Formats: sequence, C-alpha cells, structure tokens
Amino acid sequence: MGKRVYFFGGGKSEGDATMKNLLGGKGSNLAEMTNIGVPVPAGFTITTEVCTEYYEGGKGYPEGLKEEVIEEMKKVEEIMGGKFGDKDNPLLVSVRSGARVSMPGMMDTVLNIGLNNTTIQGLIAKTNNERLCYDSYRRLLQMYGNVVMSVPSGEFEKILGSIKEKQGAKSDADLTVENLKKVIEDYESLINEKAGKPFPEDTFEQLWGAIGAVFESWDTKRAIEYRRINNIPGDWGTAINVQTMVFGNMGDNSATGVAFTRNPSTGDNKFYGEYLINAQGEDVVAGIRTPQPITNEQKTDPDMVSLEDAMPEIYKELDGIQKNLEIHYKDMQDIEFTIQNGKLWMLQTRLGKRTAASAVKIAVDMMKEGLITKEEAVLRVQPAQLDQLLHPMIDPKAKIDVLAVGLPASPGAATGRVVFTADDAVEKEKEWGKIILVRSETSPEDIHGMNVAQAILTQRGGMTSHAAVVARGMGKCCVAGCSALQIDYDKKQFSVADKVIKEGDYITLDGSKGQVIDGKVDTVESTLSGDFGELMSWADEFRKLEVHTNADTPHDSKIAKDFGAEGIGLCRTEHMFFEGDRIDSMREMILAEDVEARKKALEKLLPIQRDDFVGLFRVMDGYPVTIRTLDPPLHEFLPHTDEEIKELADKIGVSSEKLKTKAENLKELNPMLGHRGCRLGLVYPEITEMQARAIIEAAVIVQKEGIKVHPEIMIPLVAHINELRKQKEIVVKAAEEVMEKTGEKIDYKVGTMIELPRAALIANEIAEEAEFFSFGTNDLTQTTFGLSRDDAGTFLPFYTENEILPADPFITVDQDGVGQLMKMGVERGRNTRKDLIVGICGEHGGDPETVIFCHDIGLDYVSCSPYRIPIARLAAAHAALKDFKTETKGEA
Amino acid sequence: MGKRVYFFGGGKSEGDATMKNLLGGKGSNLAEMTNIGVPVPAGFTITTEVCTEYYEGGKGYPEGLKEEVIEEMKKVEEIMGGKFGDKDNPLLVSVRSGARVSMPGMMDTVLNIGLNNTTIQGLIAKTNNERLCYDSYRRLLQMYGNVVMSVPSGEFEKILGSIKEKQGAKSDADLTVENLKKVIEDYESLINEKAGKPFPEDTFEQLWGAIGAVFESWDTKRAIEYRRINNIPGDWGTAINVQTMVFGNMGDNSATGVAFTRNPSTGDNKFYGEYLINAQGEDVVAGIRTPQPITNEQKTDPDMVSLEDAMPEIYKELDGIQKNLEIHYKDMQDIEFTIQNGKLWMLQTRLGKRTAASAVKIAVDMMKEGLITKEEAVLRVQPAQLDQLLHPMIDPKAKIDVLAVGLPASPGAATGRVVFTADDAVEKEKEWGKIILVRSETSPEDIHGMNVAQAILTQRGGMTSHAAVVARGMGKCCVAGCSALQIDYDKKQFSVADKVIKEGDYITLDGSKGQVIDGKVDTVESTLSGDFGELMSWADEFRKLEVHTNADTPHDSKIAKDFGAEGIGLCRTEHMFFEGDRIDSMREMILAEDVEARKKALEKLLPIQRDDFVGLFRVMDGYPVTIRTLDPPLHEFLPHTDEEIKELADKIGVSSEKLKTKAENLKELNPMLGHRGCRLGLVYPEITEMQARAIIEAAVIVQKEGIKVHPEIMIPLVAHINELRKQKEIVVKAAEEVMEKTGEKIDYKVGTMIELPRAALIANEIAEEAEFFSFGTNDLTQTTFGLSRDDAGTFLPFYTENEILPADPFITVDQDGVGQLMKMGVERGRNTRKDLIVGICGEHGGDPETVIFCHDIGLDYVSCSPYRIPIARLAAAHAALKDFKTETKGEA
Repeated sequence: MGKRVYFFGGGKSEGDATMKNLLGGKGSNLAEMTNIGVPVPAGFTITTEVCTEYYEGGKGYPEGLKEEVIEEMKKVEEIMGGKFGDKDNPLLVSVRSGARVSMPGMMDTVLNIGLNNTTIQGLIAKTNNERLCYDSYRRLLQMYGNVVMSVPSGEFEKILGSIKEKQGAKSDADLTVENLKKVIEDYESLINEKAGKPFPEDTFEQLWGAIGAVFESWDTKRAIEYRRINNIPGDWGTAINVQTMVFGNMGDNSATGVAFTRNPSTGDNKFYGEYLINAQGEDVVAGIRTPQPITNEQKTDPDMVSLEDAMPEIYKELDGIQKNLEIHYKDMQDIEFTIQNGKLWMLQTRLGKRTAASAVKIAVDMMKEGLITKEEAVLRVQPAQLDQLLHPMIDPKAKIDVLAVGLPASPGAATGRVVFTADDAVEKEKEWGKIILVRSETSPEDIHGMNVAQAILTQRGGMTSHAAVVARGMGKCCVAGCSALQIDYDKKQFSVADKVIKEGDYITLDGSKGQVIDGKVDTVESTLSGDFGELMSWADEFRKLEVHTNADTPHDSKIAKDFGAEGIGLCRTEHMFFEGDRIDSMREMILAEDVEARKKALEKLLPIQRDDFVGLFRVMDGYPVTIRTLDPPLHEFLPHTDEEIKELADKIGVSSEKLKTKAENLKELNPMLGHRGCRLGLVYPEITEMQARAIIEAAVIVQKEGIKVHPEIMIPLVAHINELRKQKEIVVKAAEEVMEKTGEKIDYKVGTMIELPRAALIANEIAEEAEFFSFGTNDLTQTTFGLSRDDAGTFLPFYTENEILPADPFITVDQDGVGQLMKMGVERGRNTRKDLIVGICGEHGGDPETVIFCHDIGLDYVSCSPYRIPIARLAAAHAALKDFKTETKGEA
Repeated sequence: MGKRVYFFGGGKSEGDATMKNLLGGKGSNLAEMTNIGVPVPAGFTITTEVCTEYYEGGKGYPEGLKEEVIEEMKKVEEIMGGKFGDKDNPLLVSVRSGARVSMPGMMDTVLNIGLNNTTIQGLIAKTNNERLCYDSYRRLLQMYGNVVMSVPSGEFEKILGSIKEKQGAKSDADLTVENLKKVIEDYESLINEKAGKPFPEDTFEQLWGAIGAVFESWDTKRAIEYRRINNIPGDWGTAINVQTMVFGNMGDNSATGVAFTRNPSTGDNKFYGEYLINAQGEDVVAGIRTPQPITNEQKTDPDMVSLEDAMPEIYKELDGIQKNLEIHYKDMQDIEFTIQNGKLWMLQTRLGKRTAASAVKIAVDMMKEGLITKEEAVLRVQPAQLDQLLHPMIDPKAKIDVLAVGLPASPGAATGRVVFTADDAVEKEKEWGKIILVRSETSPEDIHGMNVAQAILTQRGGMTSHAAVVARGMGKCCVAGCSALQIDYDKKQFSVADKVIKEGDYITLDGSKGQVIDGKVDTVESTLSGDFGELMSWADEFRKLEVHTNADTPHDSKIAKDFGAEGIGLCRTEHMFFEGDRIDSMREMILAEDVEARKKALEKLLPIQRDDFVGLFRVMDGYPVTIRTLDPPLHEFLPHTDEEIKELADKIGVSSEKLKTKAENLKELNPMLGHRGCRLGLVYPEITEMQARAIIEAAVIVQKEGIKVHPEIMIPLVAHINELRKQKEIVVKAAEEVMEKTGEKIDYKVGTMIELPRAALIANEIAEEAEFFSFGTNDLTQTTFGLSRDDAGTFLPFYTENEILPADPFITVDQDGVGQLMKMGVERGRNTRKDLIVGICGEHGGDPETVIFCHDIGLDYVSCSPYRIPIARLAAAHAALKDFKTETKGEA
C-alpha cells in the first residue's frame, strides 16, 4: 500500500483531476483547482483505498495512517497560518466524504472540527466575533453529537427550540451570545448523558471521530440502497476530505457569493452572480437579506452595490479566476467563493446549470471561440432540454395558483376559457377566442374541438392516452389523467376540492409540469434562434439514424418537414375517417350487412383517402411515406349517445334499435386485445384492398406530376406470418392492378408493425414477407408488460414513485424487457432479410434515451410527432457520438 | 436406378411393410398382406422414385419402365387367370396413388381399366352379368374421361341425369342395360368432342394414361397446399398401385363386406362386421339394402343371415385371416373384403377406429394377451379420447334437432329446462329439477346459479371465458360463445332464427360438439372400468411430469385427488370471496376509504380464508398446495345493476351515489391489462398480508393435526422483479410472525406466475426471488398474441377455419411463439436457481399436445382442472414414451 493521504493547498497539490478513483470526485477537483492556481483553503484527502482497508481490516485504520495525517496537517497549518487545536491561533477543519461519483445527501459531513472550550477563546480573540464563534461551536456539538456519537438529532432540536421559545427568538439568528452559551451547556450535558461520555476536548480525537463516522456512512442502509439502484459497486469506497474552514461572516471585509461564468438564462458570455458582505453561504440563498450583483453591468437599480465597486481588487482576482476556470474546464462553471478578512477563497466549481436557450447559445459560442469542438458542442445540449424551446412556457416570474396536478402529457403552456364539449369548443372559440377543452377523456370524435382549443385537460388516461397522443401530434399543451377533477357535464363545470370552475372561467395549463392553474397567467413564447439551427445542422452531420415523423395530414407533415423530418414513419389512416362527412361513409361501411354493401361504402371512401395521400406525397416530395392500414376497433367509429345514434340511424335509413344492437355487438371487454389491426383487414379484406388502391392511385397521380413517391404500406398488429402473408397478397394484387391500368410503375414496399411479443419472437419468419419493420412500442410495451396505457393511471404513478419501476415504460422504452424483444426483432429479421429496413414509430420515438437505444440496436430510423423531431435529431447525434472522448479534464 | 416395379400376388411379393418410402403406404401394405398369406388381388407397385424421375425428366417415363410394367402385368395375368386387353378373358385393373403418408381425397384414382368395346363382350361372357359390365364400362368412361382426358365431370353428370329423367329412373340402379348403352354412346361422343380425340380402345394406352394422370395429381394446387400445411416434402412423390379388379356383385356367390377384428364400440375381443351378398362396397355403406351380420353372435334378429351361416367355408377363411392380421399388426384392424364367385379377396386392412372405452379395453386386453407391451398399451390410447369417458354423452342413437352451434367449451351432455338468471336457477332447480342456465356471458356473481345448473350456455365468450373455465372446473357441460342466440332477459326467452325458447322449455347441450339441441335428449353415462384404472396406473409408471390440479374448494380437490392429482397447482383465492356473506366483507374492503377501514374489512375475511385453506390442506394431505394471491380487478366484486347497488349501499351504510361513483371509477377500458394481479397487492399491501397470514395460520392448524402441509404462495402478474421482491417481503414477514407466535415451523415457498412476456424475458432475475415458477399460459397467450380470449370469439373461429392460425392458441399452447417464451423462462430461471420448480397452471395444462411440450421443455408438473387429470396423466406418459419404438411392422 502506497501513499494514503494527498495534500492540496498553496498552489500545489499531490493529486489532480485524473485521480478521481483514488481521491473521489471532490478530492480530485480540489486538487485540480489548487494546481491551476485557484486559491483553495488548504487541506488533504484520505484515499478511497483507506476506506476499503478500513472495512477489510475490521474497521481499524491501517498502520501509519495517523502519522501521515499529522504530517499533512502540519503542511495545512503552515500554509493557512493557524494551528489545529491551538489555544491562541486555532485552525478549524471540515470533514467531508467524496466518492468517485456523487451520492447526494447520502453521506455524512462534520464542520468546525477543532473547536473546544479552550480553542474557542483563541478564535474569539482572532476573529473578534464572539457570536460567530459560539454559534460555530454549537453547530459542531450538534453535528458531531449526532453523526459521530449517535445522539438523535431531535434531542438537540428540542433543546434549541425550548431556549428559543423561552427567549422569544423567532430564528437562530435572534439568539444572543448568552443564549448560545446556555445551548452549548445543555448540548454538552445531553451528549454526556446519551452517549455515556463527554464531547471530546482533544481536537485530534474529534478529527478521528469524524473520519470514522464518514467512513461508516458508506455502509448505511440508505447508502447501500442508493448504490444498488445506481449500480455503484460497494468496494469503490469513499475518500475523505479534511479542509480548512473559512468564514465569510467575520466582518465587513468578509463576504460570500455564488456566480456563473456566463449568464445561465440567456447564455451571454458575461460573468454573472450575487454576493453578500459579512455573510455565510446559506444567507445568499435564504432570501433574508437581498444579495447584491457581482458586476456593474448586472445592476438593475442604482442603489445596488456590486462586488466590482465594493471590493475592486478582489473582484479583479475573482474575474481572473472565473475566466481561468472556464478555459480550464471548457464549460460554463457555477462557482462558490468566500472572502475572509479580505482574502478570496474558492470553495467549489462545478458545471453550471442552464436553460435550454442558454445551453444552445453557450455550446455554439464556445465552439466558435475555439474552446470546444463541434462534437463537444453537440454533446453539450441535452436533447430533452429542447422541448422548452419548442413550446411557450409559463412566465417564470408569474405568481401562480396551482389547482391540481395531472400528467405532463404534452409540453407547453396555454391560457384560455373552459369548455366541456368539442362542439362547444368550436362554437365558443368564435366568441371567446382562446378556449381550453376539459373532458373526462377524449375520443376520436372530439378532434374538431381539440383542433380549435389552445390546450386539453382530461381527468383520465395516461401519457399515451388519446388526448395525449393527439395533443403532442398537434404540438398542443395537454394535461392528462388529472384525477383530482370532478367534472359535471350537466352543470358545465368542474371542481377540485372546494373550488368550482364554470364554463367560461379562465384556467392555465402547464403541460410540461402537469399543472392546472387558476385564472389567466402570462406565457412566454420561446423563439428558435439562429444558434439553434446551427447546432441542429451540426447534429445532422454526426447522426446515423434517420428521423421520420408520425403525421396524418399534409399540414402536420409540413411542420415536421420544416423541423427536419426525412419521411413519414407512421400515417394513421383512421384519423382521416373522422373529418366531416367521411365518418358517415365509414359508419355505413361498418354497418353494412354484406360484402356488397360494404364495398359500396368503401367505394365512397376511396377517393377521399386517395386525396389525403396525394396531399401527403406532395408535401413529402420524394421522402418515404409509411401508411398503416386501418388499425382501431370498428366500434370507435360508431356514435355513442342515444341522440347521436338516432341521428345516424335517420341519416342512413336503419332503425335506431338495430344500430344500437350493432354498436353493442361491436363492444369488447378488452378492445386493445380485440378485433383490430390486421384482424380487420383479414375478416374484411375489402377494406385493405380499398386502402391499397387509394395509396397506389394517389402515388400514380403524384408521380405523374414529376414528384418522386415512395409509399410503404404497413400492416398493423401482425402476430402470425399468415396474417401478413394474406394481407400482402391483397395489397400486391391491388397495386398491380392499378399499375397495369395506369401504366405507371410505383416503387412501393409492404411491411409490418412489430408491436406484439409474438411478432418479435418470430421476426425471422415475418421478414420472409415484410420488406420493412416498424416497432410499435406503445402496443409492444402494453403487451410485454400486460399493462394498458389507458388504465395504468391508477397505479403506474404509485409504481414510479415507489421505485417499483425505474421509469414510466410508456415514456422511455424498457430496455430490459421490451428492448430484448426489439433486439430479437432486429437480429432475427435481418438474419432472414439482410437489407430489412427497421424503424420505430411508437411514442417512444421522440424520447432521447430511447433514440440512443434505437441507434445501439441498429435501427435505420426513428419516427416521432413533429414537435419532437429536433429532440430526436439531437439524441441521434448524441448516440452516434457516445464514444467520443471530450478533452475536458475530469468532471467540473 | 434399380428396380422400378414391385409385384405382389399369389402369396408372394417383392416388397414388404418396411418399404413405405419406396412403395408408399398402400403399396407396402398390399405387399405385406400378400407376404403373410392373405389373398390379395394380384398387382404391382410403381415406386415413388419413378414419380420423382417423371418430374425431373420433364414428365417423361424413365427408359425401361414400360418393359417392366408389361413383364409384371404378365405375372398378374398368370396368377389371376385372365389377360389384360384380351377379348375372351379380359383382366381389369385399378390404378391408385399411394404416397408415404396418406393424403385423403387429394389424388386421383381410375377403376376398371382394361374395358373397351371388345373386351366388354369377353367380360359379359365370363361374368354372365351384362348390366354389371356395361355399368363398369360407363364408370370407366366417366372417370377416365374426367381424370385423364380433362372433360369436366359435370358434363357426364348432365348426360346421365337427362337419361335418368327420360327413363323415370330414380337412381343409377334403375337404369336398364339399354339405358346404359345409350349413356355409353353419349359419353363416347362427349369425350371425342371435348378432348378432341376418342377414348382409347387400346388397354395399355388406357393404363399409361391413368398412370400419367395419377402422377400429375401429385402436383395439383390442392395437393401442394395439403403438403404445405402438413409439412410433407414435395420430392417424396407418390407410388402407383396397379391392381386386379374384383367384383362382389357377380351373383349370389359373390359378396362384399367390412369388419373389425374386435368390437369397435365395446372393445370386446370378438370378430364383428357386416356384409351384403351380390353387392359392391358402396352398397354396404349406402344404406339402401340392410347389411347382414358377419357372425351368428352378432345377430339381433332371427331373420338375419350371417356370413357364418350363408358361406361357412368363406367365413372360416375370413375369420382365420382376421385373426392372422391382428396378430401380425398387433392392433385391432378394420378390414374390407370381396367375395367374387365364391373366392375371398382381401382389399384392405387398416387400423380400426374405436371409441374411447374400446380403445382402453383393447389396449389392456392386448397387453394381457401378450400381444403388446405395457408401453405400447399406454401409447395405444389417445389422451384426448379419455374426455369421452369422463362425461355423459348424447345417446348416439338419439335423433337430435340442432338449434345452433357454439364453442365446445366444456365436454359432456346435459338436458334441462332453461332459466336466464343465477337466482332463477337456484329457485327453479328446487321446483323443476334439472335446469340449464342461459346467459349472454357469466361473471363470478353467477356462481351460485352455475352450481345448481346441469349445464351452461352463453352467447359470448371463448374457450377460456368465465363460463368455460368455471364449467370445466366443475366438470359441467358448457357451450359458450353461441352467437346465433338472441337473448331477451325481459321476456325470459331466447331465439335462434325464428325459433323461440322460453323459460322452462327443455333444451339439451352437447358440450363436446358445441351443439344446442331442441328438447330433451337421452344421454348415456360413461362409466370408468377397471381397465381404465389399470391403464392409468401403467401410464403413471412411465410419466416424468407430475400432474396437479386447479381447484379452489375441498370438494373439487377431492375429485381431483381421486382422479390422481398430486397437488394443487392453482388455487384461485378470489373464487372464495363470492360465496354467501363473504362478498359483503370483500365489498367493504374495496370501498374502504383508508388503510384502517380496509384492514378492518380484511380482518373479517381472514378467518374465512383460513378455514378455506384448512379444508384444502386436509384434503391434499401432504401434497403441495399452490395458492395464488388475489388476481382479478376489484370492480369484478362490485354490484352492477342499480338495484344491487342500492341493496349494498343500504347494507354497508353509504349512499348509492357514492357507491356507483366508486364502481364507475374502478371500471377499466382493458381490465385484462389493468389494475389486477400483484398490482393490487402492491398498492394495497394489506390484502397480500392478510392472505399470507390466513395461509400460514391454516397450515399451522393442520400441521398440528399431524398432517403434512406444503403451502406455496404464488404472486400473480409479475412483470418486474421489484414487484415480486416487495410482495415476497410482505409474505415472509407475515409468515414469520405467525410461525413465531405459534411456535410451529411451516415449510412454505414463495413463487410467481410467469404469465407476461416480460416475466419470461427476465426469468433469470425473477428466479433470484422466486422459489417456483408457474406458467399462466392463458394470460401469456393473450399478451404474446395481443389477443383477448373474451373478445377473440368474433374473429378467432375465422382464423382457424381459414388456416391463418393452425389451431386455437387458447386450447393448445402456441409452441412457436408462446412456447419460445416458456422455454426461455425455464432455461433462464434454472440458470439462476438450479432447483427451481416449474409448472404450468393455464387451461392448457390439460391439453395433451401441450402436456407433451411441457415434458419436452423440462417442466416439473402440469396443473389442470379435475376432469382433465387422467388426460394429463396419459399425455405425460406419452411424452415420456415418445422415443419408444413399437414392434409393429409398418402402419396398418
């Protein structure tokens, strides 16, 4: 065993950023900062190997460790100009854990080690601040007593509370020196009584007690559980950092602050931060005193006193350090500093958190400044962040009154007046302008209302319920499954607890957070900057996956293409049947008594479908267009209420009773597992035939206009090869007839959804017929888990909150289960057909983690709703770059 | 290429039973019979290799074939004493196909080859039967004209029909010789006209034409399709059998008959059959003349004339032959014979079809006679056949009027008066006795009605619908999903087309065929003979799989144990909650507002559950008892109609409205994929805790009585390891508390259902916690196919009829898909835990094919409903013996 303790301080350290495994994240970072000349309070790091030895050796310290620590402490004393345990010029230290990876809140810390009844007098003399010293001692007793000597922290709180009450003190700050002395006395008695021995006066005994306690905290139940969940090996151990304490509250030449090397909101390349004179770190964030700006440029009020003005020399030093840190770490830094008696100390530097807009700007700027490469710039922006940029947001400065929280089903924010039916939506929108549609749940019949609404709020349904899927497709804000709502359609109102919202009242939805907010709230539109476009074009240089879109109309396809879609990955033909009069022909088809009647109804639908496809082909202009044949159970198209039934019955000339019976007969106990998908096209082959004809006829029309057309006809819900075989026969026959009749040759493909476990299992067989696969991961997740996305609302939140499931499998593909089937599908499919095209068109196609997984398993493309396309493009680039090594030293 | 044509006849043949690949099934069998001295009309077989050569050589015959045929024909002539094509003593032959495996009805045959306008005169002279000869010639023209010369058979029928009409002849037999001559004349003109050439007078030309046509029929579309479905390689080819024609209708010393070497109904070892003097084969089965018994013992009427009396010498010869054949083939034979002019010819011998009862008796008898081994005896009875023995049947002699056909959901037959509600069932049963419950579909609330009913008829639902599963469990006849029914609950009647059946009317159900029959029909009870028990005990000697039962009550468990169950593989605890007052406590639990209220309700249920388990443990007396924790969605337990809701609301003191809302909230769009299974036990851990306590407390009680107890607690619907982990924690904690409190140590296990694709995929993880797996193949099939068993009724029959699916996957496990997951589950599970116990408890557990599959993939046991247990035991023995080679020569 070699060196066990690594010193840092005074511009030199024995470690550096590369030694994270040995010194832990924090220790190596303190060493690195010291090395590049940043003034860091001196200290030393006890290595992770000692932790391992500690446990292997039955919780004893290895021989020679104590001597090493004493030696390093001497170096600290020398540099910091104090002496640990000295009665005249005492030096205080903190003892902190520091594992290879951060385990926030999991492990213990002890501050102010080195104070006792003797050294406190020296500290008072040195600082001339009696209150600070007694308060520090009180804190030491409380932390040490609890962490090291196992006295329950509640007991300390009880003592503190009772003295505060007695003194009428509102906060700790109101306690006088005398009060604090009384607290200290009571704390000492408490420790003596509960621990069976007194708080150690010996400062080295304090130090070893703290070190032991921090090592012990590596093996607490919660730390073990945290490691299990996060896959951190138990034998990594933690390092321990012993570092000199500095105080920003020693007087008016002391201060403390936090800052960012660039503006974290806008990304502007300007130093930005706040500080407070004579204060501790927590005061800056606590909001009792108003922090002041660091720079003059930041000032919004002439009364403000910037650090630049108040302490110009210190400011200059700090500005130099921050520039240095950013260049060194090659990213925007979030720094903490303390000024103790006119001396600047840097306590921490880490990656600065930032808004989406600033992330984009910083990445693009830094690339142009030559600080980072194009690859790094692309990797600097998290794909999920982009969602913020693509939708309006609640004004961050607005005060809001949250009525209830549902699922964040479709991002963005919107304000409007409440309506309760799709018809009302259409009518009231003309009168009122912005409206929000509130429903128990939505169905395809509500589309016209959703179309005019600003946003949609539902009481039931999950992240992939009808409302959620349609809203995302429309790029519209939606809060779904908000079970706290009680909707009363008759009275046209909903209530949450005692609050009643009537038709016409204003509400605001935050679809990114799932919030339902009372009244009007200002929203801010995020605009796409030139930086955004530039970053996207860089992403496109790297990604291997194509990005297609799920779109059913020329309008949506156009939006998607503008966002960069390279094809339509899923056109759901059923959505086309709900508009205007089409639904009547559709219903006529469903209610047909025999094949002939059905064919007659289908003949009416054919030209309509054909026109739809012509529109899509024109917009997509040579990109592939994947069209899925009819998928949903037929009863979805039928009217539900008695009134609607009567209306339809009159229209098509059958009795209401008959129509009702038919609708009743079509109802299913589990429609998701019922007569839908290719099962419809098999029992009613004339439906598939009509759709195939409409597609190929449309392709002929558009191709004759000189536009390239690549239709891909996709058969849904295939479980057995014979299903695909028979459907393909129908499609090919119809296509050949059209091509022969028109003399036009169309380059079309026939493929299938892989959306049932069985399809993935027999993908080798299926690829004999299918020219392409598209993973329908919504259904595949439902069937693999045996979990209906529409019904999961009652228990899935419980599952994710209680970590029964690591994530909602309808948002991010479950790689362990569903992912196995996808891998199987790709491998087995390509075993049979080497050039098989494989994509994904489930809702997961726009989820960054899923996109990366799709890249890894070798998919050709992902397809997602139009507004997710930039996210998918960036995620695809990240996937392609995941083995790219950045030049950044260590982790900031 | 070696020998191409194999002779048989006169007691000697060039082939034998082992040469099936070369001579086809029929050819090798004719050779075998000849070899053992059976008088077979002489002939020869052209090998399958010639067929292959025929196709490879562009449909030409290999060199030398014609010469070989001519040579073999000479041998035939010599033995049969006639000459092919001779005008004085003509010999007629048939040309038949004969592939390695039988392809019934797929290929062509031509009879009476050798007749022409010249030879017919010789035949008339020889037979002295002008009509026979002209009729034979007419048949030749018709068959040959169609099969060889491609004249549509309808054209022949037209000619025949018009002449019959002109003559006022009702059947062919009414035509005179003159009429037949006219038919022949017209046939000859027809052929000449349609084929462009005359029917060949040259008999060898006839022969080659027929041989070519039979070869061609190997490659017709229907034959190719048949081979594809049955996995028969196209290059096997067919052999061709050319055999001398014999006639049983040459006069009163001619006859024809069919017989069995033992009684096919009872299995009695007595020769049994029917014959007709001066008749052709088809006359025996046509029913125009009444066939006579072969033996005197068979005579049921003194006027009957047995063959034994009519032709004692021939009878003796025939009896000798049949004995010989049975000994030779070591199984009961179905034989055909013809007596031509006092000479006995055997035309065919094959395996005799038999009833279940006779199959059992024959197998046991033959073993005792030393004819076959014990293994062979076990293999002689098909497991599925046993179903007949375990349930009453419609009297085969009864005349029935089938109203409609539904799914054969639970076997057996029953007659009774119709009722339409469970309550009516209970009430009317007291008054009327036997009743049949008719419902759209059943739910757990109908149990009391199902209990008293003779049988159940439903309009909706499939083979694994509630009605079907419960009926099979009760061993009760059920016809499900009979969609032709129109039920009118208000009028208490149902109609099928125009027929109306009212409450109190009699109907009869045949649950084995799915028939709904009008009125009362006699049923016959099958009794289990001693032979049955003996055969079962032999099966038990061989099988490796254990057979457990799915049973929820001591009563069912007792039945199952008597049938040989070695444990309970699935006790569904939810069924226990429907009886009597229990449902109220259950509802109270579901409607509870908080944990405390829920616990209070559960406290009431605990002693009831405990008593249930005590009963099961006592009956199973040391066998393992696998108990599944609560599985179905809670709303199943709530009342549905307004009336029921009001009643319950009053009883438990909440408002009807509130109760209705709660029930409404619990409703799910896809309950199969909703809040059920372990998802209930996770959200409401107190339910699992109560059940675990009840199980272990019951075990303690019974163990104290000196009875061994092995409870196995099974967690349903696990998809993620954390679900099982958390449920197991609850179970173990409860169990340990009970054991500590009582001081009794219980040998219990905790395991899980594998019923979701994801569970199979991560079986390695799941086995870390699970001590046993049980495949829930109902749910696994539903999720793997994405197919609800309750809704599949609308299209699954279409799928199986149209061969989209080879079989109903809810009856026989889909080995290609679901089976892959099962294999995965076993392998991965045992990789983690070598001694993992694995069983199956889906409805498939009693299906013979599935049982064999379960044996193959290494399961420890199958579990099925009580009445399927003998079937599973026998199937398990078959599985274990599947590599056992019988000594039988060839296939009879």
